[in-house]
Amino acid sequence: MRRVGRGCLAFERPPALLGRAAVGGKREAQGPLGADLDKTFGDTSLGMDTWEQAEAQLQKEAVALALARAGLGPEDLDLIFAGDLLNQCISSTFGVMGYQVPFLGQYGACSTMAQALLLAALAVESGAARQAAAVTSSHFCSAERQFRLPLEYGGQRSPTAQWTATAAGCAVVGLSGRVKVRGGLVGKIVDLGVKDPANMGAAMAPAAADSIARYLRDTGTSPGDYDGIFTGDLGAVGTALLYQLLAEEGVHLQRVHDDCGLLLYDRQRQDVHAGGSGCGCSAAVLCGHLLKRMEQGELGDILFCATGALMSPTSQQQGQSIPGVCHVVHLTAG
Amino acid sequence: MRRVGRGCLAFERPPALLGRAAVGGKREAQGPLGADLDKTFGDTSLGMDTWEQAEAQLQKEAVALALARAGLGPEDLDLIFAGDLLNQCISSTFGVMGYQVPFLGQYGACSTMAQALLLAALAVESGAARQAAAVTSSHFCSAERQFRLPLEYGGQRSPTAQWTATAAGCAVVGLSGRVKVRGGLVGKIVDLGVKDPANMGAAMAPAAADSIARYLRDTGTSPGDYDGIFTGDLGAVGTALLYQLLAEEGVHLQRVHDDCGLLLYDRQRQDVHAGGSGCGCSAAVLCGHLLKRMEQGELGDILFCATGALMSPTSQQQGQSIPGVCHVVHLTAG
Repeated sequence: MRRVGRGCLAFERPPALLGRAAVGGKREAQGPLGADLDKTFGDTSLGMDTWEQAEAQLQKEAVALALARAGLGPEDLDLIFAGDLLNQCISSTFGVMGYQVPFLGQYGACSTMAQALLLAALAVESGAARQAAAVTSSHFCSAERQFRLPLEYGGQRSPTAQWTATAAGCAVVGLSGRVKVRGGLVGKIVDLGVKDPANMGAAMAPAAADSIARYLRDTGTSPGDYDGIFTGDLGAVGTALLYQLLAEEGVHLQRVHDDCGLLLYDRQRQDVHAGGSGCGCSAAVLCGHLLKRMEQGELGDILFCATGALMSPTSQQQGQSIPGVCHVVHLTAG
Repeated sequence: MRRVGRGCLAFERPPALLGRAAVGGKREAQGPLGADLDKTFGDTSLGMDTWEQAEAQLQKEAVALALARAGLGPEDLDLIFAGDLLNQCISSTFGVMGYQVPFLGQYGACSTMAQALLLAALAVESGAARQAAAVTSSHFCSAERQFRLPLEYGGQRSPTAQWTATAAGCAVVGLSGRVKVRGGLVGKIVDLGVKDPANMGAAMAPAAADSIARYLRDTGTSPGDYDGIFTGDLGAVGTALLYQLLAEEGVHLQRVHDDCGLLLYDRQRQDVHAGGSGCGCSAAVLCGHLLKRMEQGELGDILFCATGALMSPTSQQQGQSIPGVCHVVHLTAG
């Protein structure tokens, strides 16, 4: 481990991805990345009694499939870093507890997959774990109930609103493999005072701009050095703001940039307004789509920059702003 | 870093505590450890508009005091691991965001301080951070509102219930110092099917027994090898169960054991029923009381075993059990 800058890390013995898997619901199956998901569920209850249990089941499935692809069992994992959007992270608890792997719950809102993956890589490189997993999830129905309105209410969505993905992604990290975790950056909390919970993209864009600019500066690289820079999940509104904020610092990443929230759905056809969001969105895009393209040699060197909006309905109701955070993970396919 | 067992770690270059601080409310000030707290607030609103903002303020104060004791500023921290009990960990977000330190939100319910401290130590030993901080908080009033009943309702508490501490603790980890983090163990989620949210001690005791027994086995040590084994927060009910569960495995730790939930308050005088709880309870007992005793030479070698109940009001209402987790941190004063 080499400390490149504040919160900016480069692995000297880069850990590798041994396995990865993404699962999704019906809408995700029907989207442009449907074929990249390892398993999808037409019945988004997954046969469970509650949406929260259905979300836990998504994590359980993602872990099982990632382990299978790695040729490992749960007993081969020394640590699991798991997170989600639900109060007290219950879909992580109930999703992974059956595997009986030492458990570290993570919370970074929709940035959690990047956070969990960085920490899993740190655990493996340091020798704390032989293998470690990172898994995150979200579910449209559990998120609507908790953050917004009962589904039955049929509330109208604003054009800037994003659609919480019903999805989960899991990555298993070890020492040898083709796709490597080279380093990354832990983001600071950035708060420009955005208060509109129907416009998370705007709340998170400043954090994405801050973390990406710092990472490029600390590592002395520019956007053109990467095959892709993928944020998650800024959606259409946040992406436009990201370009604007970075342009002010002389950074132009349009040519290599895409956003997980814009990749997962066809915005015109699928009525998701500004795009996808949720801890499961960037996790599924990373573990289903991006890592697959890296394995196939289509992408050699990418930055995965997951973004989170660190708010709760309570902080909203109390008039607080929506601070954002963005963590960066640098991945290469050797 | 040496991997001793599954989730069980020994630091080869043990990180050290550079600074630590504990803050509390009125009841905590009046308790047996009142004199060990660095700052207490007779007005538990801390002058803020909401209980949630008051809790955030507790974290902010704890970080400031721990940094001051370490002779450092926020810019000297490369990472901060922060957590709390509130939905989406908002007291961590709003408590520490002003410091502008790269942020990793942690969730392990009342075990979060042990989790955050282990990860901060891992970050420092690996070279990812020059200095890192761990901070957690809880507030009686924000917890009651969220997990139980409005304060104004004046609900009766059952004898097995615990009192959520209004407190926070922060530890700053670096490379040189007298009190060292020697190692620890990341706990598995243990679920024996307890469903009574007014008896968290019973829900967490099986996890504490599992983690302590595994740590002793993996390290080949016995309770007598330590000056103290401190759980947090099992309270009176959970402590009795812990003794019973460990006795079944031939482990007897009564002589060296105490529980943070039993240390923070005088149960008879302070009407806290089975004892204290909350992310801030074990954090304040560790950072106010235990580390002070280590600095003064009264304790040389301890295990800090914070326990968490991984439930939410939603999982409760849906009839789910209350799984527990317990993380162990081994500390020595050299």
